[in-house]
Amino acid sequence: MSPLPPPDPFNALVEALDLPPRGDGPLSGARFTVKDNIDLAGHRTSYGSPAWRDAHPAPVHNALCVDQLLAAGARCVGKAIADEFTYSLDGESQFFGTPRNARAPDRIPGGSSSGSAASVANGLADFSIGTDSGGSVRVPASLCGIWGMRPSLHRISEAGVLPFMPSVSTVGILAAGLPLLESVARVLLRSGTRPAPSRRRLLVLSDAVELAAPAVQTQVRAALDDIARRTGLVAEPIRFAQLIGEDRPLSDCNLKALRDLQTAEVQSTIGNWIETARPELGTTFSLAYGNVLRFDRIAALESLKRCERLFEQINAALPAGTIICFPTTPCIAPPKGSLRTLEAVTAFYDPTMTLTAFSGVARLPEISAPLLTVEGCPVGLSFAAGHYQDEALLQALSEFLRPQDR
Amino acid sequence: MSPLPPPDPFNALVEALDLPPRGDGPLSGARFTVKDNIDLAGHRTSYGSPAWRDAHPAPVHNALCVDQLLAAGARCVGKAIADEFTYSLDGESQFFGTPRNARAPDRIPGGSSSGSAASVANGLADFSIGTDSGGSVRVPASLCGIWGMRPSLHRISEAGVLPFMPSVSTVGILAAGLPLLESVARVLLRSGTRPAPSRRRLLVLSDAVELAAPAVQTQVRAALDDIARRTGLVAEPIRFAQLIGEDRPLSDCNLKALRDLQTAEVQSTIGNWIETARPELGTTFSLAYGNVLRFDRIAALESLKRCERLFEQINAALPAGTIICFPTTPCIAPPKGSLRTLEAVTAFYDPTMTLTAFSGVARLPEISAPLLTVEGCPVGLSFAAGHYQDEALLQALSEFLRPQDR
Repeated sequence: MSPLPPPDPFNALVEALDLPPRGDGPLSGARFTVKDNIDLAGHRTSYGSPAWRDAHPAPVHNALCVDQLLAAGARCVGKAIADEFTYSLDGESQFFGTPRNARAPDRIPGGSSSGSAASVANGLADFSIGTDSGGSVRVPASLCGIWGMRPSLHRISEAGVLPFMPSVSTVGILAAGLPLLESVARVLLRSGTRPAPSRRRLLVLSDAVELAAPAVQTQVRAALDDIARRTGLVAEPIRFAQLIGEDRPLSDCNLKALRDLQTAEVQSTIGNWIETARPELGTTFSLAYGNVLRFDRIAALESLKRCERLFEQINAALPAGTIICFPTTPCIAPPKGSLRTLEAVTAFYDPTMTLTAFSGVARLPEISAPLLTVEGCPVGLSFAAGHYQDEALLQALSEFLRPQDR
Repeated sequence: MSPLPPPDPFNALVEALDLPPRGDGPLSGARFTVKDNIDLAGHRTSYGSPAWRDAHPAPVHNALCVDQLLAAGARCVGKAIADEFTYSLDGESQFFGTPRNARAPDRIPGGSSSGSAASVANGLADFSIGTDSGGSVRVPASLCGIWGMRPSLHRISEAGVLPFMPSVSTVGILAAGLPLLESVARVLLRSGTRPAPSRRRLLVLSDAVELAAPAVQTQVRAALDDIARRTGLVAEPIRFAQLIGEDRPLSDCNLKALRDLQTAEVQSTIGNWIETARPELGTTFSLAYGNVLRFDRIAALESLKRCERLFEQINAALPAGTIICFPTTPCIAPPKGSLRTLEAVTAFYDPTMTLTAFSGVARLPEISAPLLTVEGCPVGLSFAAGHYQDEALLQALSEFLRPQDR
């Protein structure tokens, strides 16, 4: 037995662990944490909710993705804090506390994979696995200044991962650097041979850039100028309406499509459980859940159709070799405790979810790269590719970026 | 309130129901049943297991796919019998009985969507929704002589559907005729405009045909000759090794790939529940579950990689416009009560799962058409297309087949 890891001064973990590797492989030597909605054998999975944890026995098997990582040589060092039922983007859990944002300790870490991001950003782990339905991997990666990947929908096995939004939720990866992110992704995605480098096209989604704070916009332009200068690849601005060939705003991905699918599916998973088990709920979650409870799923079926059309339209515009770029979040992390009014919540969530819904509705792989800094705080720059183009996206990024940025 | 439907003399239903439509639409006037692992609000979902049913409260929401059907004008007339935990292909439930195979009453109906198939084949319903992980929609459709579709993996929402094998299980459709199957599929898949007819290529998977009983092979040839005579489209025989560009047998899809993924994922879903809840299990299920319990998921990770390669290889050979054809099952339904010895079980399951694993591992849409008859009993002829080519496959079939065969 290795000695137990030191206690966690960053409040990233529900529990420090030391699960040794089950083999040698591409991840030998790497330490990882696991979001607390992904099963670890013999440990209760809380889903961010003490009530859920206490109502469900510990699983006897690790989630399959955890076993893939252990077999590839990685060591699991902890179960990471998650927001209640993973239904939040802020990372302030009233049950488990707020994991520390390493680069901006007075600000929120982002959620719901808050402990995953904090464990990596604070150096407790080299990478973490989380889940992403509306941005729960990408947003904390952006706000904490680390790498985050939401792969193509369902490409990573969800066996042993609590079901949340079955048509939306996806296992994702947070990592300290791009080479490790790529190694972990290739294990979990069971990637074959590396794709041959091909001629590429880089688009930048203008409407998404314009949603961001002016200082973020300036940083996006500087990052793209740098890529152009070093690689010769000039980012072509494109508007959402032009991309999909229909006069619709980018916000439709969220408000007229993905959000309704998300709400309808949450009713069927945790909604059914809450209505029958009547557990204690946190204040923040209760507010959000009120909208779930009142939601008319029959009226929402039109939005489900729009999700399919947007999937088709966006992917038609992203053939192999085309990458599209936009800020992961519109702003740096809000201060801790600031998301207490409806106005503050709306100001943070609405533009953020407009950005994250783009890849969500189109089932794209998206990688948030920690390339931007505003007021000393990190913001991610996201790169996305067509559905199932995960490996090509990873390879493109390793070619685009300076070694010190990877 | 409409009058309650008549009692069920065919043992297809757990419960007769009468849930009225929630709107007018393309399914107005059609009656459907719902496999008992798909939620109906206010009714306990048994998953084919009385122990599961008694341990879980009734859901408060219908599964999203049920609501899609009600909103499109269909009427739900019953909850249909499923095999225990949906982990069977035979349809002989020791808890709920054996639904009647309408065209071969002394033979099994096939499973696990046994009651779904029997409710349609016996005329209690016009269509049914079930789930398919290793053939649970396609096999009963084949053995009962009705239409069955396993769509592309995860294209239908699984919100409110009990998770079984998250990387494999898919909601599917059973129907009395092709036009209705297509209408139901277009509602659940949220299909857009109909694809334009295009030049087509029809392949026939030689290894799959050779696995079938000689009389089935003769019938397959006759059906393909008929298509060629009427449409000019001549089926081109192709061997599996030639299709994927690697010298491997068709059985690899099952034995060296999908089956291990299935077993590993079952451990994480019902395996965790059984090991902690210790429910009463049926005899047949217990035998199968013994293998699950002893299964080494770490050793199986190589098979997960093979699944990805087979997905890529098979789909590379099936571009838009290419359809591949093979018998759904190698034989007609075995006699009731005949699957009691290991020898009999192996003789039925091994070739059947070799056939069903092809689309399973490649995430293809597959439609079993009730076109073959051997010894007076039905066998399905399956047509599959590339991943996400569901609508094109439906359209191709409506062009291939004689009006009286649709």
